Amino acid sequence: MTAVVDHGGSLGRAAALFPHAPLPWIDLSTGINPHSYPLFDLPATALSRLPEPGRARELGAIAASAYGAPSVVNVVSAPGTQILLPRVASLVKPGRALVLGPTYAEHARACAIAGHAVSEVSDFEALYDSDLAVIVNPNNPDGRVTGRKKLLDLAAALHAKGGLLVVDEAFMDVGPQAERVDGDVGQGGFVVLRSFGKFFGLAGVRLGFAIAAESTAARLDAELGPWAVAGPALEYGIKALGDTSWQAAMRDRLDEEALRLDVLLVKHGVIVSGGTSLFRFVKTPHAASLFTGLGEKGILLRNFTWDASALRIGLPGSDTEWHRLEQALGAWAKRAENRTEVRS
Amino acid sequence: MTAVVDHGGSLGRAAALFPHAPLPWIDLSTGINPHSYPLFDLPATALSRLPEPGRARELGAIAASAYGAPSVVNVVSAPGTQILLPRVASLVKPGRALVLGPTYAEHARACAIAGHAVSEVSDFEALYDSDLAVIVNPNNPDGRVTGRKKLLDLAAALHAKGGLLVVDEAFMDVGPQAERVDGDVGQGGFVVLRSFGKFFGLAGVRLGFAIAAESTAARLDAELGPWAVAGPALEYGIKALGDTSWQAAMRDRLDEEALRLDVLLVKHGVIVSGGTSLFRFVKTPHAASLFTGLGEKGILLRNFTWDASALRIGLPGSDTEWHRLEQALGAWAKRAENRTEVRS
Repeated sequence: MTAVVDHGGSLGRAAALFPHAPLPWIDLSTGINPHSYPLFDLPATALSRLPEPGRARELGAIAASAYGAPSVVNVVSAPGTQILLPRVASLVKPGRALVLGPTYAEHARACAIAGHAVSEVSDFEALYDSDLAVIVNPNNPDGRVTGRKKLLDLAAALHAKGGLLVVDEAFMDVGPQAERVDGDVGQGGFVVLRSFGKFFGLAGVRLGFAIAAESTAARLDAELGPWAVAGPALEYGIKALGDTSWQAAMRDRLDEEALRLDVLLVKHGVIVSGGTSLFRFVKTPHAASLFTGLGEKGILLRNFTWDASALRIGLPGSDTEWHRLEQALGAWAKRAENRTEVRS
Repeated sequence: MTAVVDHGGSLGRAAALFPHAPLPWIDLSTGINPHSYPLFDLPATALSRLPEPGRARELGAIAASAYGAPSVVNVVSAPGTQILLPRVASLVKPGRALVLGPTYAEHARACAIAGHAVSEVSDFEALYDSDLAVIVNPNNPDGRVTGRKKLLDLAAALHAKGGLLVVDEAFMDVGPQAERVDGDVGQGGFVVLRSFGKFFGLAGVRLGFAIAAESTAARLDAELGPWAVAGPALEYGIKALGDTSWQAAMRDRLDEEALRLDVLLVKHGVIVSGGTSLFRFVKTPHAASLFTGLGEKGILLRNFTWDASALRIGLPGSDTEWHRLEQALGAWAKRAENRTEVRS
């Protein structure tokens, strides 16, 4: 339960699976925005000096505003949300952890590290029986959205018995804003996780946040200690989270491109059943054939051990990538047709 | 015990203390090398993509070689050693933690977070009575070195009763290599901490390592989870830790500059009593006057709450900084003389 599993995004793994694929790889195996926030030159001191506490507070304040947290005191800045998972799971003493799944596998692993007995459940109501409940909202990979009212009711019920709800809003930047619960953390009983790298396309800088009631945020902050966020992450976080016009334009662009991807897929007989505008979710009996067919063309999708018919497909990042995807889908669909003809 | 304390290195704090100081500040309050490893252009993917697992393994292997660890399986790469401290302190169940002090204050704070009853002791032998013992070697701020044999004996004794020794070798890059214990971690019972940012002058990238027996390293690795080290830290770590000729030349340069600083200080009546080549340690009844005198000239030293007569002084980074330091020391010494004359 504690071994690190595949999450997509490794071209080393892709090359091992498809050694003869044409290069460069097109990595559609993640939900990371291929259009990263514009890169800029960092001041040398962002690398050489210890991050300034004042600059870290500035990041916290901008994040509070961007995510709709009540105040900067509710925001914990971290070198990625990943490193926060076992810390958040340790906020309640070892008990029964239930994860609404299938979802991002690291939550179950983190709960186990924190000493919980972990199960995955598919029914929201079952989460009421937990000491620690975890929901990814919108969910990765299928895009399922749980409503804010349901989340707050669950959090209140868990809180009343000393439990905790974790709401992972890793993809809420492109989710329905009415369902985000960042503004409600003052009521206690839940922690929201926010990922910087996915929407801003800067997964390498490692930046994430926990949004929580003030006392919980202070406890997590103390565990991370000073200088938790690196200089480059501070600089990119402050600039990008404060750039609301880039964010608005990017949301529109991602919506358009997700639609374009759906149209392209359906043209080749692949029906999208969910996802967000950063990734599309597909259920098809031809999943394995599609994964292999595109892999051999140097296009990496995300497949899943828990469902051989499921695939997650990210957005191509350029005209060249769109073109190669279209060609590869065409070739795959044609071979599939031929096979069908032979069989019939 | 869990509040984050001052560690030097904050120019925000400096400006608040000395609002009329001439700018720019000369920050001698840290032990960070002012001559950082040469900056280079990062590939865009170091920021945009998730760090590749293969690249992270490469960093681990280079760190093992640089620090003299038995193997890559003994190396845990982290976004700074700071974030590792409570995790390492949690490797033994809550008990009695003893820190050989005075030293870096974060160790006591981390031990308390992990649930230990923490005390500082000044006598090495007293550490045998602990469940968790912490030694910084060479020590920050006074430079005291504890011998390898003594450390390994202590580790074995603690190990035999289920305890643990933490050896923080944050400044061992410029310490006596015969006393480092990284190569001995296979015997179990201790964890070594290594800091990348200090010697390489890249504190902002946030990179540090734990060196430990394989099972302990695996446990720490699992807690950090995937992508613990950011793209920029991976790239700088791989290049700088592998650059042994830069390292050798830098050690010589720092030795020379530390000597130059000692000579400059003694010329103004300030006797250096210890330290490493990255920082000098001074005990003088005039510490408060020196801290203020230089602070008013825009030169920040490190003072300590636990000893008003102690100061830590880092290395100036340029001819301009050396010149300003000399001028400020001269003005301070002259005022001190005048005061002495008035009094006599």
